[in-house]
Amino acid sequence: MKFLSFEHQGQKTYGVKVKREEAAWILPKVFEAFGESDYPKTLLEGLEQNVSIDFQEAVRKVVVQAEKSDEKAQYKVNFSDIKFLPPVTPTNNVIAVGRNFAKHAEELNNTVDRLYVFTKAPSSLIGDGNEIPLHSDVTEALDYEGELGIVIGKYGHKIPKGMALDYVYGYTIVNDITARDLQKAHAQAFLSKSLLGGCPMGPYIVTKDELPTPENVNIVTKVNNEIRQDGSTKEMILKIDDLIAEISKYIALHPGDVIATGTPSGVGAGMNPPAYLKAGDEIKVTIDGIGTLANTISEK
Amino acid sequence: MKFLSFEHQGQKTYGVKVKREEAAWILPKVFEAFGESDYPKTLLEGLEQNVSIDFQEAVRKVVVQAEKSDEKAQYKVNFSDIKFLPPVTPTNNVIAVGRNFAKHAEELNNTVDRLYVFTKAPSSLIGDGNEIPLHSDVTEALDYEGELGIVIGKYGHKIPKGMALDYVYGYTIVNDITARDLQKAHAQAFLSKSLLGGCPMGPYIVTKDELPTPENVNIVTKVNNEIRQDGSTKEMILKIDDLIAEISKYIALHPGDVIATGTPSGVGAGMNPPAYLKAGDEIKVTIDGIGTLANTISEK
Repeated sequence: MKFLSFEHQGQKTYGVKVKREEAAWILPKVFEAFGESDYPKTLLEGLEQNVSIDFQEAVRKVVVQAEKSDEKAQYKVNFSDIKFLPPVTPTNNVIAVGRNFAKHAEELNNTVDRLYVFTKAPSSLIGDGNEIPLHSDVTEALDYEGELGIVIGKYGHKIPKGMALDYVYGYTIVNDITARDLQKAHAQAFLSKSLLGGCPMGPYIVTKDELPTPENVNIVTKVNNEIRQDGSTKEMILKIDDLIAEISKYIALHPGDVIATGTPSGVGAGMNPPAYLKAGDEIKVTIDGIGTLANTISEK
Repeated sequence: MKFLSFEHQGQKTYGVKVKREEAAWILPKVFEAFGESDYPKTLLEGLEQNVSIDFQEAVRKVVVQAEKSDEKAQYKVNFSDIKFLPPVTPTNNVIAVGRNFAKHAEELNNTVDRLYVFTKAPSSLIGDGNEIPLHSDVTEALDYEGELGIVIGKYGHKIPKGMALDYVYGYTIVNDITARDLQKAHAQAFLSKSLLGGCPMGPYIVTKDELPTPENVNIVTKVNNEIRQDGSTKEMILKIDDLIAEISKYIALHPGDVIATGTPSGVGAGMNPPAYLKAGDEIKVTIDGIGTLANTISEK
């Protein structure tokens, strides 16, 4: 299943992609018509309830009924009529891992660090199709980083590596937008990584059953349709299970937490001369089996 | 007013300190009896509503009525009967500033950085009186840092310095617990600052009208009643208005966000020989006009 959060007719809501259609089942409407009254009010609540109720199974049941309904059109909305939101707003900020691809660490003259973990502020989250401000008042070096995002499905602390994949709910795409000049000026990455619009996420959370080999999928980032990053998650130094085990050794992970797993080589700062983002640029991050996250840089 | 969040009879709720008593008005009960039905369900919701409704004024009105009531005892609870929770869980993690006191930067052989900003995971938050795990499996150098916490009252981005104090709702105390060995091992501060129980906060949020000179209050940290830190917020390099203006230049601040403003000299790592925390140690951080945040290190 592909879950999404979106705005429709001024309301924030969530849904699940309709198979073979560019449309979503509006889940609160479907639950109200065919399910229990105590349905999750947000996608994050759905993930949080997943411990006691199988959220995916609950969705499957009501969607089957909606499909059969004579008025099924009223439970659906076309993607052209919605504004995508970030699928979830994680409790623990967006946890992001740096220097997890050897060639990318090299292009920025960084050594590979064993565990380089910072966060991106939730106030920087935006959905697919939304504009990223240029922020020309504070940076002249806005850059992209296409990444696989792990979405956590249940609470865990000190998770053994062998159990780590049990804690995954699904996967999404994160564009870890970074102001390179601020990143250099500040020892801590938080500010340079948390500008408004600096964390595009989505379009979907794909449940893990639909992405059976997350450690061998291609990540391609294009700027104005020119390929800039052409990598694969198989180049990751710390793999998905390593990251979950290592990070949860220190911090407690909650349902809906997102770990952005690091970016392959090919960022703008690594080009000669560096090619930073400018107004009007469209950045598309595509991960096989998830989809494409596309955002455009705005004038300001 | 002194606002607090707490657990009572297994329920999480919030309240306001009763004047001259070690007790709280249980605000949801008071609102239900004497106010509008649409009252805030958490303290964070109260702060978020504060834009449209004056939360403090709404609380004042209903508490006056509770005071007059014949059954006023039923709306109150003694501090001895509650478990303090962190007053709020901020949207943007706990934003923390390092190296903001010259003598403290010096004792750790750090240079003063213009703006050293990292975050502490919400999963590390605990309230007054709760235990901090020793985490001996991952660190041998757990340390304290007593700090003033600024609580943001309304949404702001690129806030001018001259307007910054208008965005403050109140103040709290933060103990920025840090695993010094992990801090040294990792370039980014997030993990070493985000261990479970690593962010004691509270006991209250004191509204700003009750702390008229936040830039000239003493911060005293004691370990087992021995004074370790004896500083004042007047030593802060970046002042409260500087911090709000500088941080909001990059990230958007939300109601309930907390900025921990840095710690004075006197941490365990700066002693000769270093004195790290051990099981049974009690750490008390006292800030004049706010109160005392006390936590004990547990066995594990």
